[in-house]
Amino acid sequence: MKTHLECIPCFIKQSLEAARMATDNEKIHEMVLKEVMSHLQGISFEDSPPELSREVHAIIKRITKSNDPYKQAKDESNIMGKNLYSRLEKHVKDDKDSLLMAIKLAIAGNVIDFGTMNRLNVNEVIDNALKRDFDVSSYPRFKKVLDQSKNILYLADNTGEIFFDKLLLKELVNIGKEITYVVKANPIINDALLEDAKFAGIDKLATIMAYDAGHDKSTPGTVMHYASEEFLDRFKVDDMVIAKGQGNYEGLSDVDREVFFLLVVKCHLVAQDIDTKVGKLVLKVNK
Amino acid sequence: MKTHLECIPCFIKQSLEAARMATDNEKIHEMVLKEVMSHLQGISFEDSPPELSREVHAIIKRITKSNDPYKQAKDESNIMGKNLYSRLEKHVKDDKDSLLMAIKLAIAGNVIDFGTMNRLNVNEVIDNALKRDFDVSSYPRFKKVLDQSKNILYLADNTGEIFFDKLLLKELVNIGKEITYVVKANPIINDALLEDAKFAGIDKLATIMAYDAGHDKSTPGTVMHYASEEFLDRFKVDDMVIAKGQGNYEGLSDVDREVFFLLVVKCHLVAQDIDTKVGKLVLKVNK
Repeated sequence: MKTHLECIPCFIKQSLEAARMATDNEKIHEMVLKEVMSHLQGISFEDSPPELSREVHAIIKRITKSNDPYKQAKDESNIMGKNLYSRLEKHVKDDKDSLLMAIKLAIAGNVIDFGTMNRLNVNEVIDNALKRDFDVSSYPRFKKVLDQSKNILYLADNTGEIFFDKLLLKELVNIGKEITYVVKANPIINDALLEDAKFAGIDKLATIMAYDAGHDKSTPGTVMHYASEEFLDRFKVDDMVIAKGQGNYEGLSDVDREVFFLLVVKCHLVAQDIDTKVGKLVLKVNK
Repeated sequence: MKTHLECIPCFIKQSLEAARMATDNEKIHEMVLKEVMSHLQGISFEDSPPELSREVHAIIKRITKSNDPYKQAKDESNIMGKNLYSRLEKHVKDDKDSLLMAIKLAIAGNVIDFGTMNRLNVNEVIDNALKRDFDVSSYPRFKKVLDQSKNILYLADNTGEIFFDKLLLKELVNIGKEITYVVKANPIINDALLEDAKFAGIDKLATIMAYDAGHDKSTPGTVMHYASEEFLDRFKVDDMVIAKGQGNYEGLSDVDREVFFLLVVKCHLVAQDIDTKVGKLVLKVNK
């Protein structure tokens, strides 16, 4: 997906949010906003949003002198995800189509902004998410490809959400699949890192790969031309690719292989691209 | 009210909206965004939002070569307001406290973004607005000051909304008040102009004054140091001042005279300043 003009105010809003997570110093918040605005005057709209987001967050990290502004919010999300896990697992076990329920929960995990809600709210949000209208029209295709696949490349998104992924990973492992779970090598927004995957115990279910785009090249979502040889190789040869969240959709929607996207649509430009609505929980294949 | 860092992404979002109303040329939209970002890097946060909004919209007008980007949206709002008027008037007549109902409707008129909804929706929105929780704790003070007042200065906000003002103006005229209704002399966003007040027939109820801040100095909301001698004189000597909308609140909340604000709270910074919540319909006195 290309970047749209609407992404500009969104980048600026997120810059302020990130700067505030990194420091309480309002002068630094102002410096961040001004430098980000200066940078955005020179960008190309041919680049995808995750690539521009990388540039914006590199500025934020440099000015705030914080390599990981979202650290505290990420840790809180993980703890919340961990506390919810057994309840979520029961949902999967009790369902007659446990694979579909695990997929739904993996998508629902993408709806929740853990950082901003308390534990009671989260329970409510999950119950509401499960009542919501899922677009799982690609589920038959998902099952067909899954049946024919041995190796699965699973691209993670956020902390907290990784506990929801774990449910689906377990289902896949139970039916004999071998999974590579890809997290980010370097901090970017609230995306999950190696340490988060380990915290969730995902290293016991899958091989963890860190998507290493190099220093200051961390992108929220996968940007192919920053990816390592190792990643590109797996992306090419693995039988099936599952990608979580909007960032991965923005980075990979035009790529030349079949990818199954599990996401909550959070922006009307992505909604337009997928031909759906904001707030929709979607399992979508790009081909 | 001072400008906050959160106002920055909001200004940029509005710039894109205004540029799109002025032209379909995407290159010009991009030019507008970039020039606005360039300008915002040099602003002082001591200035109030309406003052900075003036600067931003002057850039938009210059680059799009449109002196009135919201013209079509404004005209549509007026037509919608006009079509609703008799129904609104019935609400006032049927209520046992017709003054309070007229005040509530004048506030409700500020909730509706006419440009974005069809006629059926507007009826629904008004019904919902009337069911909503008004903060009219300043109503006793409003009535007391009204009883002691002969001349009232009434600062208008948007087109369409002016038909809701008309209901309140009628109530005030019926009890013998003399009103000066202040609109903008030059186009700024969707604020009402002289021609709009005439379209609504308000010139038959009140003396219309155009708040003339000079060329390219039109502000959404009143900024005292741009105001004419004539306006400042009336602001000082009139017995009572009623001001509509957030822009007037932002510009006048700190001013050294009693002002009655009728507004819908649309931004959490204003909500914080008033000590209320976003979405609240408020009659508020600044003293």
